Amino acid sequence: MTGRAAHEGRGAQADIVERTRAFVAEHVLPVDDQYDGDIAAAGGDALRRRLQARAREAGLLTPHGPVEFGGLGLGMVDRAPVFEEAGYSLFGALALNCNAPDEGNVHLLGKVASPGQRERYLGPLARGETRSAFAMTEPDPGAGADPTTLATRATRVDGGWVIDGHKHFITGADGAGFLIVFARTSGEPGDGDGATMLLVPADRDGVEVVRHITTMDTSMVGGHCEVRLRQVFVPDDDVLGEVDRGFRYVQVRLGPARATHVMRWTGAARRAHEVAVRYAASRRAFGTRLASLGMAQQLIADNEIDLAATRALLREACAALDAGERASKETSIVKTFAAEALHRVVDRATQLCGGLGVSADLPVAKIAREVRPFRVYDGPSEVHRWSIARRAVRQIAGAR
Amino acid sequence: MTGRAAHEGRGAQADIVERTRAFVAEHVLPVDDQYDGDIAAAGGDALRRRLQARAREAGLLTPHGPVEFGGLGLGMVDRAPVFEEAGYSLFGALALNCNAPDEGNVHLLGKVASPGQRERYLGPLARGETRSAFAMTEPDPGAGADPTTLATRATRVDGGWVIDGHKHFITGADGAGFLIVFARTSGEPGDGDGATMLLVPADRDGVEVVRHITTMDTSMVGGHCEVRLRQVFVPDDDVLGEVDRGFRYVQVRLGPARATHVMRWTGAARRAHEVAVRYAASRRAFGTRLASLGMAQQLIADNEIDLAATRALLREACAALDAGERASKETSIVKTFAAEALHRVVDRATQLCGGLGVSADLPVAKIAREVRPFRVYDGPSEVHRWSIARRAVRQIAGAR
Amino acid sequence: MTGRAAHEGRGAQADIVERTRAFVAEHVLPVDDQYDGDIAAAGGDALRRRLQARAREAGLLTPHGPVEFGGLGLGMVDRAPVFEEAGYSLFGALALNCNAPDEGNVHLLGKVASPGQRERYLGPLARGETRSAFAMTEPDPGAGADPTTLATRATRVDGGWVIDGHKHFITGADGAGFLIVFARTSGEPGDGDGATMLLVPADRDGVEVVRHITTMDTSMVGGHCEVRLRQVFVPDDDVLGEVDRGFRYVQVRLGPARATHVMRWTGAARRAHEVAVRYAASRRAFGTRLASLGMAQQLIADNEIDLAATRALLREACAALDAGERASKETSIVKTFAAEALHRVVDRATQLCGGLGVSADLPVAKIAREVRPFRVYDGPSEVHRWSIARRAVRQIAGAR
Amino acid sequence: MTGRAAHEGRGAQADIVERTRAFVAEHVLPVDDQYDGDIAAAGGDALRRRLQARAREAGLLTPHGPVEFGGLGLGMVDRAPVFEEAGYSLFGALALNCNAPDEGNVHLLGKVASPGQRERYLGPLARGETRSAFAMTEPDPGAGADPTTLATRATRVDGGWVIDGHKHFITGADGAGFLIVFARTSGEPGDGDGATMLLVPADRDGVEVVRHITTMDTSMVGGHCEVRLRQVFVPDDDVLGEVDRGFRYVQVRLGPARATHVMRWTGAARRAHEVAVRYAASRRAFGTRLASLGMAQQLIADNEIDLAATRALLREACAALDAGERASKETSIVKTFAAEALHRVVDRATQLCGGLGVSADLPVAKIAREVRPFRVYDGPSEVHRWSIARRAVRQIAGAR
Repeated sequence: MTGRAAHEGRGAQADIVERTRAFVAEHVLPVDDQYDGDIAAAGGDALRRRLQARAREAGLLTPHGPVEFGGLGLGMVDRAPVFEEAGYSLFGALALNCNAPDEGNVHLLGKVASPGQRERYLGPLARGETRSAFAMTEPDPGAGADPTTLATRATRVDGGWVIDGHKHFITGADGAGFLIVFARTSGEPGDGDGATMLLVPADRDGVEVVRHITTMDTSMVGGHCEVRLRQVFVPDDDVLGEVDRGFRYVQVRLGPARATHVMRWTGAARRAHEVAVRYAASRRAFGTRLASLGMAQQLIADNEIDLAATRALLREACAALDAGERASKETSIVKTFAAEALHRVVDRATQLCGGLGVSADLPVAKIAREVRPFRVYDGPSEVHRWSIARRAVRQIAGAR
Repeated sequence: MTGRAAHEGRGAQADIVERTRAFVAEHVLPVDDQYDGDIAAAGGDALRRRLQARAREAGLLTPHGPVEFGGLGLGMVDRAPVFEEAGYSLFGALALNCNAPDEGNVHLLGKVASPGQRERYLGPLARGETRSAFAMTEPDPGAGADPTTLATRATRVDGGWVIDGHKHFITGADGAGFLIVFARTSGEPGDGDGATMLLVPADRDGVEVVRHITTMDTSMVGGHCEVRLRQVFVPDDDVLGEVDRGFRYVQVRLGPARATHVMRWTGAARRAHEVAVRYAASRRAFGTRLASLGMAQQLIADNEIDLAATRALLREACAALDAGERASKETSIVKTFAAEALHRVVDRATQLCGGLGVSADLPVAKIAREVRPFRVYDGPSEVHRWSIARRAVRQIAGAR
Repeated sequence: MTGRAAHEGRGAQADIVERTRAFVAEHVLPVDDQYDGDIAAAGGDALRRRLQARAREAGLLTPHGPVEFGGLGLGMVDRAPVFEEAGYSLFGALALNCNAPDEGNVHLLGKVASPGQRERYLGPLARGETRSAFAMTEPDPGAGADPTTLATRATRVDGGWVIDGHKHFITGADGAGFLIVFARTSGEPGDGDGATMLLVPADRDGVEVVRHITTMDTSMVGGHCEVRLRQVFVPDDDVLGEVDRGFRYVQVRLGPARATHVMRWTGAARRAHEVAVRYAASRRAFGTRLASLGMAQQLIADNEIDLAATRALLREACAALDAGERASKETSIVKTFAAEALHRVVDRATQLCGGLGVSADLPVAKIAREVRPFRVYDGPSEVHRWSIARRAVRQIAGAR
Repeated sequence: MTGRAAHEGRGAQADIVERTRAFVAEHVLPVDDQYDGDIAAAGGDALRRRLQARAREAGLLTPHGPVEFGGLGLGMVDRAPVFEEAGYSLFGALALNCNAPDEGNVHLLGKVASPGQRERYLGPLARGETRSAFAMTEPDPGAGADPTTLATRATRVDGGWVIDGHKHFITGADGAGFLIVFARTSGEPGDGDGATMLLVPADRDGVEVVRHITTMDTSMVGGHCEVRLRQVFVPDDDVLGEVDRGFRYVQVRLGPARATHVMRWTGAARRAHEVAVRYAASRRAFGTRLASLGMAQQLIADNEIDLAATRALLREACAALDAGERASKETSIVKTFAAEALHRVVDRATQLCGGLGVSADLPVAKIAREVRPFRVYDGPSEVHRWSIARRAVRQIAGAR
C-alpha cells in the first residue's frame, strides 16, 4: 500500500488493535481470571463458542483469516499487535479464533489446500465453526524435536491411504473437527523425506483420543492429547498437497506459526509485567515504594528491554514473511529469543509481586505456568540454536 | 566428638542417610508420584500420620529433634544429607517430621521455650503428635519482606495478652495444633523493635483460618493460609521468651531454617536432575543419544555445578551454625544462591525432558512448581542481597 | 521518499554500504591489525588524515554529515549499516569521519549552531579538517553518571564568559581543534538546570590537556583525557544555543549518539563473531570440527541472536529518530541492550577461539578490550535501567 | 593432626595467612600497581629474584613446597587462604614462588621424580633458584583442549630420546631453567595413550623460544611462549616417571593445579571487589552514596555470593585432594565455576567503578584483563563441562 491507502490501512489496523484490547478486557479477562486460566473449568468448547460469537459480532473474529471466509485478512506485521492484545488474556486468542493450532492450520490450508479442501476444511475453521489439530509429534522413538524420526505410516490402498500410528502432545485434539495428520508415505524413520499431510475428520473410524496429557499449562481448549490412529482411511481427496512433500509443507506452516506464538505470548508476558509494575508502585517496603528500590527497578527495566527486543525481532521476522520470504532464520531467532525472554519477564514479574506472585491472588503465577512450555513447544530452544548455528557456519565460513 | 566416637558417629550418620534414602524410595515416593505432589489430594494429615508412624518404626522420625523428645539429635552438618534424602520426595520431609515450618519451630522452641512450654509444645511437636505454624507474614501494609512493618498487635491485659491481627501465607495453619504468633507489643509499624512471640493453640477463641491461598506449590500440608486473629487471649505462660524481643528470636530461627530449606530443596532438585539425566541417556535424537549432544551435556554439567556449589555453601553455613555462630551472612548467602541455583537445575531438567518435562508423566514439572516460590519464601532474594551488600560495605569500607 | 526516488535512494544507500565494506577491508583493516588496534602506535592524527583523505576520494567521508558540508546526508536508519561496516575495523569510523565524539558533535551543531558557528565549527568538522571533543564528564564529585552534579562554572564577564573547571574522560581532547564545554552558568551542583554549552578552540588560553587516562580501549584518537580549564574566556558568539539550556541540548545529542555507538560496536562485534566462526569451522577437536560440537554451536547461535536483537532494536530506535521523535526510551533500551549483548558476543567469540582468542594472533581480544567500556561510557547500564524503569512505572501505573 | 597439635597447626597456618597478607601489601602491591601488572615492565626475573629473596627472609617462600627443600609443606586446604593472599597482587604468587606453572611442577616432581631428579630439578625449583615450564599445548592440529592430538614426538636413540615438536602458550618458557616436555613416544595423534614426560634444561641444543605470544594478561614472568624443539636429546635419566604414562601423570598434576589456580584468582578477584566496594562507599550520585543504590548493592551482593561459592567449592576439592583422592570431578567443577564466577566478580567491580573501572587509575581493569584467560587456560570451560556431564551420565544412568 502507498500514500493514502496505506494511511487508511494503518488507521484501520490501529482501530482493530484498540477494539481487540477493549474486547479482551470486557469479555475475556473476567472469565480467564475467574477460572485462573483453566479452560476446562471455564467451560471448554462451550465457552469458546460463546466468546467467538461475541467476537464475530464485534467484527474481530479470525484477524488473520482470508476475507472470503470472514477473516480480517491481516498480514504478519499488521496482526502482531492484534495478537498481542488477544494474548493479554490466556483465553483471548481462543476468543478471536487466532489460537494455536487453528491459526497455523488456517495459514497452511490457505497455502496448500485444494479448492474442495478450502470449502470443506478451511472455511469452517476460519469461520470458527469447528476446531482442528495438527498431529505430528510422537512418543519416543518417533518424531519429536527431530521430526525425521517420524514413525506413523500411511499405506497406499485403493482410492486413498490407511494410517497407523501413535501421536502425543496433539494440542486441541479432543473436540477438534478434524486433524492434519503427518505420516510417513515412503522411506524409513530417520529419512528427511517421505512424509505426507492428510486431512482426517476426528470422527473417522480408528481415530482415538486416548487421554489428555496433564501439563503445566491449562489454557488450551481440547488439551494436549495422546492419539491412536488405527487403520484410519483417508481418501485421495483429503491428501493435503502432494504426497511425500510433507516435510516441505511443515516449513510453510512453521515460520508464521512461530511468529504468531510469539505475538500471543508477548501479550501474556506484558500482562504479568503490568500487574507487577502496578503492584510495585503501590506496595510500600523499607520506607518507600517497592517501585523506587533499585533492585525492583532493575527487574522492571529488564522486562521493558526484553519486551522491546522481542517486539523488534518479531517485526523483522514479520516483515520478511510479508515480503514472501521463508524467513527460517528470522522466525527461528525470534522464537528462541522470545521463549526465553518472555519467560524471564514473567519470572521477574513473579519475583516483584513476592508471595502474591506465586499465588492465584494475582494473574501472574498462571501466566508463568503457561509460558514455560513455550521453550519446548514448536521446537525446543536447543534445536533452534543448532539450526541457527549451522546456518551461520555455512554463511560465514562457507562450510557445512 | 573425637577419635573413635567421631568415627562411629560418622558411620551412624551415614547409616541414617542410607536408610532415609531407602525409606523415601519405598514408602514416600510412590504416594508422591501417584498424587503428583498434591498433599491434599494424597490425604493431608491422615497421610502424614500414616507416613510418620512408619518413620517412627524405622527409627527415622525427627532427625533434628532433641533426643529427649524422641528425635535423632543431628547437628546441622549431619542433618544436611539426611534432609536432602527426605527432600528427594515432595512428601519426604513431612514423612520424617522435618518439614517447614515445624522443623524451624522445633529449633526455636529448643532454644527459647520455658520448661513448661517444652513439655506442652516442643514435646508433642518433636514426637509428631501435632503440627504447628509460624504466623509472621501479613498482608499489605503489614509485615512482609520488611518485617518491621509488623501490624498485628498484642495488648496487655490481666494475666496475659490479647492479640488482634491479620496474617497470610501462614504455612500449615489449617490443621496445626498451635501457632507461634508474631505480634507487636510496643512501638509502631516501621519500628525495628517491640515484637513478641506468643504460643497460641489453634482452637483458642478468635483464631480463624480464613482460607488456603492457592499457590504454585501444593505439597505443604495445611496449605498457605490467611488467618484472622480477633481478641485472642494468651496467658503469660505462653509468651515465648521475653516480651519485646521477638525480632531477636526471629534471627535465632531464621539462620537454621534457611539452611534446612536448602537441604530439602536440594533433594528435590537432585531428583529432577536424575530423572532428566536418565531420560537423556535413553532418548535418541539426531542419530545419537540425547545425552551425547553438546547442548544437553551443558545442561547436565551446569546442573552438577549448581548442585555442588549449593552443597558446598551449605556445608560452610552448617559448620558455622554448629560452631555456635549466628552465621547470618553464610545462611543468607546459601539461601539466596540455592533458591536461584536449584530453580535453574529444575528448569534445565525440564528442558532436557522436552514435552514430557512440562507434563505430569515425569516428576519434573511438579518439582519446578514447588521450587519456584523458594526464591520468595523466607525472604526474597532481593532482601537477602540488600543485607549481604550492606554487611560487605560495612566490613570492607567501614561504612554503614 | 516515495516510489522511484525511494527505490533509488535505497539502491544508493546499499551501494554506500557495499563500498564502505570494501574500503574498510582494503584500507583500514590492515593498519588496524598491524598495530593491534592501538591508534597512537598506528600514527594517531597523521593516520587519521591519511585515511580520511582516501575516504574523501572514495566519496565515503562523513556519511551522516550535511550535504552542504560534504557529507552524505544519511538519516539514522540509512546510516546504521554504513556505520556497522565502518565499525568492522576499530579505525573504520575514524577513517570515515563518523567516530565519536565528532559524529555526535556534528549532529549537535547541525541542530543548535548559529550560522556563524556552522561556518567556523561545523564545516571544518564535517569536512574532516579538524577534530572536536565534548567536555562534560568531571572527576568526583562533579558530573558523572549523574550529570546534575556539574561543577565546572562559567561566569559572566564583559562580552562573554569565563570558564573554570576540571574535566576527565574527555575523548579526543588531545589534538582536537575545539571543545564543546558543558559548564554551569547558574544554580548549584545537584540542580537539574542551569548548564550552558560553550565552543572553545583548543588553543585558547587556559585550556590544558593534563594527561591521557590509560584505559582498556586504545582505538580512540586523542585518547580519553583529563582537562583543566582555568579562566578560559569564551565570547558570546561562541555560546552554543541559549544560555542555561545545556541540559536540554545534551538530550538532543544523546539519543542519536547512543544509536550510532551501537552501530559501530555492532560492526566490531560482528567481526569478532565472524573470526570465531571461521576458526571453529577450521579447527578440529575430539574427532570433528569445533563448529560441529554442541557447546560451540550454542555460542555461535547465541551470538547470532544477540546480533539480530541488537540490529532489530536499533532499527526501531532509528526509525523513531528519523520520524522526529526524541526516542529517549528507544535509544536508552538499545544502548543498554547492545552494550551488554555485544560484550557477550565478543566474549563468546573469545571463548570459541580458545588460547588464540585471548592473544593478539587473532583480532578478537582487542575487540573485547574495546567493547567493555561501552557499558560504562554514555551512561552506565544501571543509570539507563533506572530511567527505563521510572518511565515504565509512570506509564503503566501512572505513578512517579 | 588431632588435639593440641591440630590446634597449633591451625594457629600456625593462620599466622602464615596473616603474614602473607602483610608481606604482599608491603612489598608486592606497590610494584604491581606502579607497573599496572606488567611483569616485563616491572623487571621480569630480576624483580622475581628480589621479591623471592624478601619472601625467603620472611619465611614465606614456597608455601606448598616440601619442607626438605625449604618449603612450608602446606596441604591443599591449608594453602588455599595463603595462595589467595598471594593472588591479591598479580605479582604475589611469583613473589612467594607459588605461581603457575612452577607450583604445579613442584607438585608433579614431588610425586613422580626419581631421587636424582628431585636433587637436580625439584630442589632448585622449590628453593626459587630457577623457574620451569610445562610444555604440553601445541598449535593446530596438535594438542589443545583435546590433549590426545599430541603431535610432538620423542624417538628412541641410544641412551635416551630425541624430541621434535612445536609448542605454544608455554607459560614462563622464556627464562625458565628447564622444561617438562610432553611428547608422544608411541601411537599416533588421536590416541589417548603413548605420551611421556621428559625433563629438558632450557639451554639444551635444539630448544628455541621463538616468541612471546601477546595475550590479554601481562603478569606471567617469562610470558606465554611459542617454542620449537628440534632434535633435542634427553638422556634416560631425565625421563620423568615411566615411558608412555604421560597422560596419567598429567592427571596427577591437573587436579591440584586447577585448585591452586582458583586460589590465586580468588585473591585477585577479591581485590577488585574490595576496591569497588570502597569506591562505591565513597562516591556520591543521585543524592546518596553509590553503595546505597539498589543496583549497586546487587552487584556487591552477587560478588559476595560468587566469592563465597568459589571458596566453598574450593574447600571441598582441597579436602578431597588432601584425603588422597584424585578428585577429578571436584577440581573440574571448581575450576569451571570459579573461572566464570571470578570473571563476573571482576566485571561487576569494573561496572561499579564506572569510568575509573576501565582505566588504569584503579587496579580493576588490569585484573579483568588477567582473569579472562582463566576460562580458557587449563582446559576451557566447555571441555570441563563435557567431562562433568559424561561422568554424571555414567554415575546416574549407568550409561557411557
